[in-house]
Amino acid sequence: VRVVVPFDASRPKTRLADTLDPAERSALADAMLHDVLAALGETGVAPEVLSTDPIDVSVPVTVDERPLTVAVNHVLSEASQPVGIVMADLALVTPAALDRLFDTDGDVVLVPGRSGGTNAIVSRHPDFRVDYHGVSIRDHRENASLVGASVAEVDSHRLSTDIDTRDDLAEVLLHGAGRAAEWVEERFSVEVEGGRVGVTRRADHPSDQ
Amino acid sequence: VRVVVPFDASRPKTRLADTLDPAERSALADAMLHDVLAALGETGVAPEVLSTDPIDVSVPVTVDERPLTVAVNHVLSEASQPVGIVMADLALVTPAALDRLFDTDGDVVLVPGRSGGTNAIVSRHPDFRVDYHGVSIRDHRENASLVGASVAEVDSHRLSTDIDTRDDLAEVLLHGAGRAAEWVEERFSVEVEGGRVGVTRRADHPSDQ
Repeated sequence: VRVVVPFDASRPKTRLADTLDPAERSALADAMLHDVLAALGETGVAPEVLSTDPIDVSVPVTVDERPLTVAVNHVLSEASQPVGIVMADLALVTPAALDRLFDTDGDVVLVPGRSGGTNAIVSRHPDFRVDYHGVSIRDHRENASLVGASVAEVDSHRLSTDIDTRDDLAEVLLHGAGRAAEWVEERFSVEVEGGRVGVTRRADHPSDQ
Repeated sequence: VRVVVPFDASRPKTRLADTLDPAERSALADAMLHDVLAALGETGVAPEVLSTDPIDVSVPVTVDERPLTVAVNHVLSEASQPVGIVMADLALVTPAALDRLFDTDGDVVLVPGRSGGTNAIVSRHPDFRVDYHGVSIRDHRENASLVGASVAEVDSHRLSTDIDTRDDLAEVLLHGAGRAAEWVEERFSVEVEGGRVGVTRRADHPSDQ
């Protein structure tokens, strides 16, 4: 399986703008990409990055400035073997969770993301195409069905948790173990306020914002 | 394994008060309880309900008005066999996800809930006790460690998604298949606004609120 990790190097993690300044958002995005690539490497696949801009990582990078959906569909249309597409912001990723993804049978294997997204895909069908706009998990189920591909889904909290918002940082603190978790742990701690769990910034790590 | 499903029959789902009126919150809680009991039944266990008040369900009910932590610890302290504790609001539950829970080895097996909760536990250690206040997943890891119990965690989006808030209803619509999903589907649909996924109430099912 050829595994591609799409990465937005130009404006990463904009929904974290209420919590992280631009340099921090970029640093967190880099750390998460590192963790995803490392976990993929441990499963025995050789991942490559599909980036909006040139970046410096230890695996091959293809630069494609086009929107995510277009760039990924270009990869799918050119592929002569199964393709895996794994999002770069899965800070809770583990090799074990990825093994479950790659070991699941099906023409199209989907991992939903919280709030309707699709965090990972393995496509073994030549005609399957993605559409990451809107409620993508629904579109992907439908797209698979339209080309006659069987669909399976992988049930994983670790893979379904992409890190987009301030609340998601609590998930990183509670369940992460890689470079991103270390980065968040340096700057934030879990706090409980009125029975709700969130994060609070450590006084010794103020934002530059 | 003896499996207990705690249920708050008096004030269920208060964090959904911005979206559902009290009668609706109660109806949704009942539907989710039904789905959890049905899925447990399909895995071959005979669940019982630990309820704050008498309720009418097809399985044995023990009424214990005390707070959740106290009531569950009473069950644990009296148990002479492994005990499973499965929350009643897991609307995405499937027998397959529960099989993974019961098939996981470990003195204490934990399923985290989003935002620091603990959605399911199997305890095979006589001294393990729960504490559902605050960030319970951390406390449960620590409590297990303090009594010398080995800990394992189950990685399941379906079991980690408890239904507490309006946003969670989108998860039910996208991934649920039982009575709760049917109930939510009758009243709400998934909507995308400004790239974010949420739910909107159907015009033909207004709230009484």
